[in-house]
Amino acid sequence: MIQGSIRVAVNGYGVIGKRVAAAVQLQSDMELAGVADVATDYRVKAAVAGATSVFAGTEESLHAMRDAGIRPEGTIEDLLGKADVVVDCTPKSVASGNLERYRSSGVKAVFQGGEKHSLTGHSFVAQANYESAIGRDATRVVSCNTTSIVRVLGAIQDAGLLVSARGVLIRRATDPWEADHSGIMNTIVPEAHIPSHQGPDAQSVRPELDLVTMAAKASHTQTHNHYWTLRLTPGTSRDDLLAALRAAPRIAFIRMHDGIVALNSTVELMHDLGRSRGDMWEVAVWEDVLSVQGDEAYLTYQVDNQAIVVPETIDAIRALTATVRDAHQSIAATDQSLGIVHEFLPLDQR
Amino acid sequence: MIQGSIRVAVNGYGVIGKRVAAAVQLQSDMELAGVADVATDYRVKAAVAGATSVFAGTEESLHAMRDAGIRPEGTIEDLLGKADVVVDCTPKSVASGNLERYRSSGVKAVFQGGEKHSLTGHSFVAQANYESAIGRDATRVVSCNTTSIVRVLGAIQDAGLLVSARGVLIRRATDPWEADHSGIMNTIVPEAHIPSHQGPDAQSVRPELDLVTMAAKASHTQTHNHYWTLRLTPGTSRDDLLAALRAAPRIAFIRMHDGIVALNSTVELMHDLGRSRGDMWEVAVWEDVLSVQGDEAYLTYQVDNQAIVVPETIDAIRALTATVRDAHQSIAATDQSLGIVHEFLPLDQR
Repeated sequence: MIQGSIRVAVNGYGVIGKRVAAAVQLQSDMELAGVADVATDYRVKAAVAGATSVFAGTEESLHAMRDAGIRPEGTIEDLLGKADVVVDCTPKSVASGNLERYRSSGVKAVFQGGEKHSLTGHSFVAQANYESAIGRDATRVVSCNTTSIVRVLGAIQDAGLLVSARGVLIRRATDPWEADHSGIMNTIVPEAHIPSHQGPDAQSVRPELDLVTMAAKASHTQTHNHYWTLRLTPGTSRDDLLAALRAAPRIAFIRMHDGIVALNSTVELMHDLGRSRGDMWEVAVWEDVLSVQGDEAYLTYQVDNQAIVVPETIDAIRALTATVRDAHQSIAATDQSLGIVHEFLPLDQR
Repeated sequence: MIQGSIRVAVNGYGVIGKRVAAAVQLQSDMELAGVADVATDYRVKAAVAGATSVFAGTEESLHAMRDAGIRPEGTIEDLLGKADVVVDCTPKSVASGNLERYRSSGVKAVFQGGEKHSLTGHSFVAQANYESAIGRDATRVVSCNTTSIVRVLGAIQDAGLLVSARGVLIRRATDPWEADHSGIMNTIVPEAHIPSHQGPDAQSVRPELDLVTMAAKASHTQTHNHYWTLRLTPGTSRDDLLAALRAAPRIAFIRMHDGIVALNSTVELMHDLGRSRGDMWEVAVWEDVLSVQGDEAYLTYQVDNQAIVVPETIDAIRALTATVRDAHQSIAATDQSLGIVHEFLPLDQR
């Protein structure tokens, strides 16, 4: 077990922030200094109900929070004073403006994938480039889609099996809890530009990947679904490909023949397995759909956009603080704390 | 204008049958002998209200229809006696059993894409293989997805620009009018097998195509959406590709910059253009999304699954009866009667 007491602040208690806060509390080498937000609604009140230390994200929200019956322990400035690292999970338009504040407070910062690579100059996926983040002031954990791409294509590239990859990403419309106008219904919205940004974003972590992505938004709220055509190193077998995926962290197999026939089957399975919030931190690859023909492979996998970056964020905290210098050691500790697996179900022994 | 009086029966007055019946009535060389169905509900009553001659699809349905206040003019046998060609639009499990009846009645038959190639030994897309259907007893108009693939990839292949094609097909969940349990909601259902059947099905019309398809069903009811990665003959430009598509029948361009940003934009546009039922017989290719990088092209298009096979069916009737021996002549007549275009909107002259 890794020892230590990295003090972690979470700024922004939304979809990612609440999950990061919970994950921090599971680490033997971290403590949650508190969370900050500007909201005064059920989300923040649930944090208070859960005995989490809550801080006001701004001076103005301090008063609004008090008016709403929430008793913040101070503002973000107070929270930063108690932290070694802050994980910024504020919205896209807000986050980039926070970096200077973190720097002047002497607190290291982990940003999320909504920000540009240029904000921190470093983009992070644990299995790809943990070492290059060690001791840095700040990094950016790449987005959910990009994280999945780096994990899966990176694993195949590392095994020397990948020539190039062309992908179609079918994104979820909005998150399940949303009730504003950000969703769509009964349609598909293709991204107006090909290639879509996820390809270049993955190259910000692994520049050597030869990949192009197209993306569309579909009319469902839970998880993304990727379809890939891969050109393989000549002679690569299906077993070679499966072995490469099995050897890499945070990739798990799902199977049609287990009744996992759709995105919502997998979501239900996560709940059946007792996972908090039904979170799936692994990329779920359909093992019995994956097909190799000649020097090409075709595969589909599922990405839990709310959860997949949580383990990466935990590892990024360790890398920035340089408390663990070995990626494998951090990944193993994170994975054990969360219960990350390679197989969700007992293997069929027929 | 093509002269003649091919007597056409339509067996099955569902999504395709009702559209084929209406299209037949628009042809100068055809007359609608009548439609047959076994239903007694609003769909058949609407045909009666529209002064269409209705026949009972079976002996049993004759009585049920009479009980429901519909006055069928006889049974399918009577209808076949008045027809030169029957278009079979009955459900998948029913249609294949009908071929012998048609043969023994001496009526030529057009089947739809739910049937296997082996039923008729001939699969039809007008621009690809009209000539080989001339004078045959029966053919099968391929499915909506396959029709779109043959049109688009066939056009590029005919221009000498295509090396290979890898596609992802995002299918609609069910048809808009359905209210049974055939739909899905808030999920994506990947097809359990890669390659999906549409690739081999397109090869039943154009065996020389090098293509592989993956497919998934999404949570919307209107139209399919395809994403393709094409390997091109070296030196092919984006303009070459657009010219090849523009030169082929039944392909039209849509543009994000015209506000056609999603599948439902296009559906609305068809209604705005005054099209019956909002039908789009063309494959709608997003012109301003199509991208060429090196020797690869990436593109997305939209397929109206309810309408796209209607013009092919009209052409198939002419081919089987050998009344028009030139594919271009039939295609031109069909397209003019329906109002098929290459551009839905006036071109932006900026």
